Amino acid sequence: MKQYGELKPSERILMGPGPSNVDPVVLRAMSAPILGHLDPEFLVIMNDTMELLRYVFQTKNQLTMAMPGTGSAGMETVLANMIEEGDKVIVCVNGVFGGRMQDICQRLKADVTTISAPFGKIIDLDDIKDALDKTGAKYVAIVHAETSTGVLQPIEEVSKLCKQYDAMLLVDCVTSLAGCELKIDEWGIDAAYSGTQKCISCPPGLAPVTFNERAQKVINNRKTKVPIWYLDLTMIQNYWGQQRSYHHTAPISMNYAFREALRLIYEEGLENRFARHELNSQALKSGLEAMGLKMWAQEGHRLPMLTSAVIPEGIDDVAARKYLLERFGIEIGGGLGEGKGKVWRIGTMGYTCNEKNILLFLTSLESALKAQGYKIEAGIGAATAMEVYAKK
Amino acid sequence: MKQYGELKPSERILMGPGPSNVDPVVLRAMSAPILGHLDPEFLVIMNDTMELLRYVFQTKNQLTMAMPGTGSAGMETVLANMIEEGDKVIVCVNGVFGGRMQDICQRLKADVTTISAPFGKIIDLDDIKDALDKTGAKYVAIVHAETSTGVLQPIEEVSKLCKQYDAMLLVDCVTSLAGCELKIDEWGIDAAYSGTQKCISCPPGLAPVTFNERAQKVINNRKTKVPIWYLDLTMIQNYWGQQRSYHHTAPISMNYAFREALRLIYEEGLENRFARHELNSQALKSGLEAMGLKMWAQEGHRLPMLTSAVIPEGIDDVAARKYLLERFGIEIGGGLGEGKGKVWRIGTMGYTCNEKNILLFLTSLESALKAQGYKIEAGIGAATAMEVYAKK
Repeated sequence: MKQYGELKPSERILMGPGPSNVDPVVLRAMSAPILGHLDPEFLVIMNDTMELLRYVFQTKNQLTMAMPGTGSAGMETVLANMIEEGDKVIVCVNGVFGGRMQDICQRLKADVTTISAPFGKIIDLDDIKDALDKTGAKYVAIVHAETSTGVLQPIEEVSKLCKQYDAMLLVDCVTSLAGCELKIDEWGIDAAYSGTQKCISCPPGLAPVTFNERAQKVINNRKTKVPIWYLDLTMIQNYWGQQRSYHHTAPISMNYAFREALRLIYEEGLENRFARHELNSQALKSGLEAMGLKMWAQEGHRLPMLTSAVIPEGIDDVAARKYLLERFGIEIGGGLGEGKGKVWRIGTMGYTCNEKNILLFLTSLESALKAQGYKIEAGIGAATAMEVYAKK
Repeated sequence: MKQYGELKPSERILMGPGPSNVDPVVLRAMSAPILGHLDPEFLVIMNDTMELLRYVFQTKNQLTMAMPGTGSAGMETVLANMIEEGDKVIVCVNGVFGGRMQDICQRLKADVTTISAPFGKIIDLDDIKDALDKTGAKYVAIVHAETSTGVLQPIEEVSKLCKQYDAMLLVDCVTSLAGCELKIDEWGIDAAYSGTQKCISCPPGLAPVTFNERAQKVINNRKTKVPIWYLDLTMIQNYWGQQRSYHHTAPISMNYAFREALRLIYEEGLENRFARHELNSQALKSGLEAMGLKMWAQEGHRLPMLTSAVIPEGIDDVAARKYLLERFGIEIGGGLGEGKGKVWRIGTMGYTCNEKNILLFLTSLESALKAQGYKIEAGIGAATAMEVYAKK
């Protein structure tokens, strides 16, 4: 009989595109004893979670909660609940996740108009305006922080445009939420979704979503049933709402972790958290540039929680990442889609995002590059990063 | 500023329809540090999980893995991947979960024929035969263990019938898997799904599924895309398979827990586990009957992991359950659908399923019933259960 033995995963420094490292307080919560999904105590946890999540989304939206799946389930929740067959949707694609939205909209048999920008660039506002002019679309779907490219899309302007054309704005905040400014109400976003494993620093497994009243009305006045039972908010809102009707069995331990991760964000404060991401990201980017690496994302639109750096010529992508993982336990991400083999994606998200990790990473990367014969001034990356911290 | 404080859920004895209690070994695994979803170590965990899950499903099916959602996501995975618009499906409904299958099939725009039996009874084989005769359906969908009624459906005969008519058999094993005999290969089940939070005794959050080669072929030869991106096996099989292509970010901690829960089942052995469920269930049922409660489920077809007992006349359902929860920390389930307010559903699943819990429950229930003026001989329930254990 084969023996499997107890699970003993290694410790990693997770500097890829997510998951990020998880605070021990949050990990501990995952091992708390299980409550039933209709237990009065669990219902209090759900209420706390909704309150805390509204704080993090900067919204008063009543329909703000966590779906029982990873970030992509959040994407599908927003799209499948809002959109009905034949609805006109403008989907903005400048990375893999925009492409995924397009795929889902097509499966929903929406009337899809795609606007593209090259990977690494933001979507042009004029292109959205043109498409709205031509199609009179009911929805614009766009990614705030493209995890595949490291690009931050300005959302407020897109929202103003949507208001002019009476279109509704659906935003992917998987990587941005809790890592940089994102104001659901003030910016006028109608519906948004995220994941737990990026800047929230909770293990992957839930998808936070939020819908304003207008969006909620659209859902509740659908002509057809939501095609996906598991993600059907017309039913799920009654479990998270006052009625507490059973729909599915909530992932209890994941909800524990999520509640605790949100509480830690609340205690840190959003502004402090954003500043922390900004500072460490600047230190990282400066260090990388000092080491001769070029940034991939368009200047002025680079994410503070995910840096895409072009792999120096002659460097073997996979070998370098393997070296970092095996020698230092550091995970970074390879490129995705057009970026495959061309860029590294270096995450500085949530709990992972601190000076110690930045300095260790830059030093480890130096070691990895030198192992492949890359010429570089000793210690220049970390030294440059330290200057950034000193100027803080 | 409102203070939320650290999460401190109470300890419960979970004797409802799931979740069940979780072994501390499994809870501990949930607090292990997170690996990336493409980390070589995580891929080994996925391989272990597939092997162990094949053991539990008693199958050699290559496509045997855990979907990133709770049990209902498993239901939707099987139905949405197998069925295309217009496909003829016979759905057997004798409880809430059969009804849920019907709902999902309708959303998929299948050509649905429904066969019903009263809640508490099994589906009549002749009814399935008649429906196959009349419709020539491509699929028969049926629930093995109806969690809403406590009824165990004999599956082997249904499978033989399906073979005669060349129909494919899709089975809901959410509550049966790892709690009573279930032989995917020997019984000729084409596709099946389950949940983690019943007899596997893992926290809710994953849905084990298995597909035989014939079913896998159907999926890979679909004319249309699977309507649900998040559950699309034509893509997900490449993440769990040799290619390891990124699809979604796997719920890492849930997979840790699942791997450990499966390992504990493997170490206990399926036969021992089934016998344990059978013995404790007999003790429970005998005790309840001695206390004057009637069984709801049809004799000869009662589940060993979930007992549905008719609430004695004059007893307030909600007050009694509240008493059990608040005074003894014991959760049992109320009725669902037709059983609402009429029956209790008492779970003896996985880690929860032991003599200590049965005796404590019977004694606590006696206390709860007496508090409402129910006449009962002191200690008769526990005493009767003890006789069952003594005869073992």
